[in-house]
Amino acid sequence: MTSSAVANRDMANAIRALSTDAIEKAGIGHLGLPLGMADAATVLFTQFLKFDPTAPKWADRDRFVLSAGHGSMLIYSLLHLTGYASVSMDDIKQFRQLGSNTPGHPENFVTEGVETTTGPLGQGIATAVGMAIAERNMNARYGDDLVDHYTYVIAGDGCLMEGISQEALTLAGHLGLGKLIVLFDDNAVTIDGGTDVADSTKQTARFAASGWQVDAVDGHDPEAVAEAISRAKANTDKPSLIACKTTIGFGAPTFAGQGKAHGGPYPADETAALRENLGLPKERFTVVPEVLDAWRAAGSRSVDERKAWEARLNASDKASEFTRAMAGKLPEGVEAAANAHKKDVVEGQATKATRQWSGAALEVLTGVIPEMIGGSADLTGSNNTKTSHTTALNNSDWAGRYMHYGVREHAMAAAMNGMAQHGGVIPYSGTFLAFADYSRGAIRLGALMGARVIHVMTHDSIGLGEDGPTHQPVEHVASLRAMPGIKVYRPCDGVETMEAWQMALSYEDSPSVIALTRQGVVPARKSHTDENLVAKGGYILSEASGELQVVIVATGSEVGLALEAQEKLAAQGIGARVVSMPCMELFFEQSDAYQEEVLGGNVPKVGAEAGVRFGWDAVIGSDGEFVGMNGFGASAPAKDLFNHFNITSDAIVDAALKQI
Amino acid sequence: MTSSAVANRDMANAIRALSTDAIEKAGIGHLGLPLGMADAATVLFTQFLKFDPTAPKWADRDRFVLSAGHGSMLIYSLLHLTGYASVSMDDIKQFRQLGSNTPGHPENFVTEGVETTTGPLGQGIATAVGMAIAERNMNARYGDDLVDHYTYVIAGDGCLMEGISQEALTLAGHLGLGKLIVLFDDNAVTIDGGTDVADSTKQTARFAASGWQVDAVDGHDPEAVAEAISRAKANTDKPSLIACKTTIGFGAPTFAGQGKAHGGPYPADETAALRENLGLPKERFTVVPEVLDAWRAAGSRSVDERKAWEARLNASDKASEFTRAMAGKLPEGVEAAANAHKKDVVEGQATKATRQWSGAALEVLTGVIPEMIGGSADLTGSNNTKTSHTTALNNSDWAGRYMHYGVREHAMAAAMNGMAQHGGVIPYSGTFLAFADYSRGAIRLGALMGARVIHVMTHDSIGLGEDGPTHQPVEHVASLRAMPGIKVYRPCDGVETMEAWQMALSYEDSPSVIALTRQGVVPARKSHTDENLVAKGGYILSEASGELQVVIVATGSEVGLALEAQEKLAAQGIGARVVSMPCMELFFEQSDAYQEEVLGGNVPKVGAEAGVRFGWDAVIGSDGEFVGMNGFGASAPAKDLFNHFNITSDAIVDAALKQI
Repeated sequence: MTSSAVANRDMANAIRALSTDAIEKAGIGHLGLPLGMADAATVLFTQFLKFDPTAPKWADRDRFVLSAGHGSMLIYSLLHLTGYASVSMDDIKQFRQLGSNTPGHPENFVTEGVETTTGPLGQGIATAVGMAIAERNMNARYGDDLVDHYTYVIAGDGCLMEGISQEALTLAGHLGLGKLIVLFDDNAVTIDGGTDVADSTKQTARFAASGWQVDAVDGHDPEAVAEAISRAKANTDKPSLIACKTTIGFGAPTFAGQGKAHGGPYPADETAALRENLGLPKERFTVVPEVLDAWRAAGSRSVDERKAWEARLNASDKASEFTRAMAGKLPEGVEAAANAHKKDVVEGQATKATRQWSGAALEVLTGVIPEMIGGSADLTGSNNTKTSHTTALNNSDWAGRYMHYGVREHAMAAAMNGMAQHGGVIPYSGTFLAFADYSRGAIRLGALMGARVIHVMTHDSIGLGEDGPTHQPVEHVASLRAMPGIKVYRPCDGVETMEAWQMALSYEDSPSVIALTRQGVVPARKSHTDENLVAKGGYILSEASGELQVVIVATGSEVGLALEAQEKLAAQGIGARVVSMPCMELFFEQSDAYQEEVLGGNVPKVGAEAGVRFGWDAVIGSDGEFVGMNGFGASAPAKDLFNHFNITSDAIVDAALKQI
Repeated sequence: MTSSAVANRDMANAIRALSTDAIEKAGIGHLGLPLGMADAATVLFTQFLKFDPTAPKWADRDRFVLSAGHGSMLIYSLLHLTGYASVSMDDIKQFRQLGSNTPGHPENFVTEGVETTTGPLGQGIATAVGMAIAERNMNARYGDDLVDHYTYVIAGDGCLMEGISQEALTLAGHLGLGKLIVLFDDNAVTIDGGTDVADSTKQTARFAASGWQVDAVDGHDPEAVAEAISRAKANTDKPSLIACKTTIGFGAPTFAGQGKAHGGPYPADETAALRENLGLPKERFTVVPEVLDAWRAAGSRSVDERKAWEARLNASDKASEFTRAMAGKLPEGVEAAANAHKKDVVEGQATKATRQWSGAALEVLTGVIPEMIGGSADLTGSNNTKTSHTTALNNSDWAGRYMHYGVREHAMAAAMNGMAQHGGVIPYSGTFLAFADYSRGAIRLGALMGARVIHVMTHDSIGLGEDGPTHQPVEHVASLRAMPGIKVYRPCDGVETMEAWQMALSYEDSPSVIALTRQGVVPARKSHTDENLVAKGGYILSEASGELQVVIVATGSEVGLALEAQEKLAAQGIGARVVSMPCMELFFEQSDAYQEEVLGGNVPKVGAEAGVRFGWDAVIGSDGEFVGMNGFGASAPAKDLFNHFNITSDAIVDAALKQI
């Protein structure tokens, strides 16, 4: 049963036609999925999905994620057919061209109506889990009147083979995210051939083992798909998987059902026969008028619902708070609270690990920012991510603000992306810095999309000690600095840690990493200022006494060593300046004049960081001396390791003397 | 039933005693697992595991992997008790100290008897899958007489929550790795508390869904464990999971069964009561003599079997080939074949993508190196990793040499580590360079362990084109260069591609990444030499005509642009040298004099690479100009992107003119 007199198949064939035309014109693209999933997607978009193309940011819309992002022409077709202004027929003609609204994979920062960027397989489903978590949390805080929607995903075999999918589905199953519904494009084909080349997993059994409701239907039977979605919606205690048995490249006479159907374009004779088979319009880039009318009618199904929602919002006493949070604006009072904390910290002059200082900063910040939702990948006590304001978020208390993500770094990072993209919440979570390697795929996607998520990465060097080189980051700070679109902070003490948090929260459109020590650090900042010194990325922490002969640039735990070295050099009558550089990216965003002033122009330089030199030449010059790591760490008490690897104030003194 | 008159529990308690003593002395360590799994591990090591402590490298030994590597005192205790020279009682006393044989997590490059380095969760099980693949492959090639052993794993809840475990177990299930047996320490506790804080997965159902034989037993009942292992061994068609229901921190009166039992040391009163409860020796670091005798007897169980195996090897006509391959030595004829190929390539002067050149190089190399086993994460046609010599490796043909890894980048990289560590095979496999982010955890572990694996990473820049920024590496080359212990090659043409392969194969103890273009590149090398120019990392590819005014340093696809720029500059009377720098790490290993000579000392420099500048200042100086990427890419035809992002020969010319 479709939503109009026009049959589901005819509407689906409009998707197939546009996808075929666009991929043919571009000369490249993935036609297999749009052809295969057009029927099921039509059911979803015309009968179930709550959305309004004229109000793409309507907060209570259902979220749709095309996890199998290579099938992007499916979503572009859907957006165009349902009436989104963002995807005109001209845009579809420009598929995969420079500057178009229709890039190769769906990019939320390019195309309105695309909820999240997908393409790297498995990310979409994990991101959707985050959206569904945010929905439940917002629902608990704002009520059914303001937040009550579903999250739908289309995922392919590839998504489900990726490990991240397991982390995502077990998290969703554990939480009982009943409003998460995954349509699995069960076409049994991947690039290398049939899935039986590489996989024998019974997906429904696998999902069932983790608490999902599972269903399997003919993905080309619209009634069967509709019934399955209805069953999935009705079960609000469990997330649902609907395995849609489909034929990849549906309609293509010789390609359908085969590995070669995945990519495109298909050869001209294949496409011609495909068009003939399905009765697609002869003219390219056209939609039969009554079919388009049916699509547009489907696209406007929820307009009244949206208006009713707006009326409820306007009438709600939570309207301004809701709107503020959804807009990503911080509440009043954050700066005052942060500054009061900084003042306390400076006055205390205590020696603590920066992870502890981060915990203290979070205690303040989660107290004044109710939309912050913390978490950890099973290292809560080590990451210092839980505060007195944050209780567990789960199906016993959806209003909780702390996620026990389990040992699932990758899904955690992706879920945070989804939470940020859902809006209304600011996610942060922790793991060891070394395990950034496990979540890097999702960290990068967050950087590309500009998602405000904050990655707390503790145990940030050999200072981790006895756990040894598998757990000791050496190259991780460098490798994250190399990534565009994300800022890496490595604060040196309690004050800088709060300032790093303030900076991380200040960017509405980009993620941050805060790298923190396991071991205690001595306070570097001796007096209070309301100014956020971390904001410039690097600054003169302690000026040379006497003539400036050397500039020591350090980050994090090595700033303390630099200050010690400064004293030792002063005792020899040598003037050394200490520059703290908690965020290299921000420093390089400053004016040349500022950079020159801080780094002292041609004055010789020493860099100090308990990591690799890679990337540091930009700061200290290729002639600069560097005190850091040349390779992997070792298992021993932290103090022994700093001595063993010669990361000491004496080593900095030696390096300085060499330079002068 | 144990292997001696001494009860399994008494033998297990020796593990518990040593673990408690060592962790207490170190003041840090993970006691929960050794206490919990001591009984089951004792069954495995005394009744089933085929090994000989006096011949730790015996090729046909069973492999044992402690995937839950934090429980390292379990394996150190086992190695000591069974009689490995590598772990003396003094070594156990030095647990987690600098330079000891008993680091915090098991490190195969430190401690003989440890098969692979574990700690980052989930890696062990995926690495073990690789070992089991190598076993089946070697068995098919050398017969039961020489290769016929099992691979055992102990994995914890954390291992099984990590996504990589799903990739590993579905691969193992698909292949039907019947000689892989995983003992799951099913203690239902993680660091943040009970597993029910974050997980509700029915692990046996999950494994069964992927074709495993599953079993669940009381992990403290030695007979039940022994029967389960026997059942697992008997089923050679399916890998087996044995869920051993255990109590974490077994024997500790108030800690047992709780989250706090995971780490250590326990408080003094807890440890005292633990010792009392279990009747452990009062004196630290002692083993009751008859218990030690029983352990040593168990440790020498397989000596005769090992000797019989050696006799079979000596009698075999495959002995020298087997021994060569297991020693990691390349066969004769590789260099000659490679040089003949280089000569052909130079003579042909064809324009092809370096991924195609890599395919051509592999066609030669897999022809002369029978132990090379290729593969791809479902991108075979794109990665050009399959050759005419390599047919599919699976349970229809274990002697095959090509792995269809499926969309499982992380398990692929870890399995390659395991294959390399098993010995006798040289694994290489492909994915897109952007997806190095998915496998980075395993890539790093390979680098730390020094495993000879070769990561073929194609589509290495915006040259990938229309798939867009999710698939375009920008920072990946930099982030991999930042990693210690691994070399990154980005060859510029067909000759350099073969030379990069030769270098990658030449390192027996380290992994390599070969980054390759999707798009065609013009030949840079115009004449043949048997010398491997890539070996020096960077070299003068084309000298300036006339006075040297600028040095252009480029890699991969940008070398062609550099050569074009050189010509354009020459037309303006400006002498520019082109340096090709296919491997930065190797270049920086050369003498200062060589580096100075190639880079031309103070001559101004321009770097060109379609990636971020991060790390390049070490080559071109912080004053050098750089032609590359400042952020993420975009979706468009490659040619348009190079123009859009201004990575062109004209941009190089402009940069050069700016410098002069």
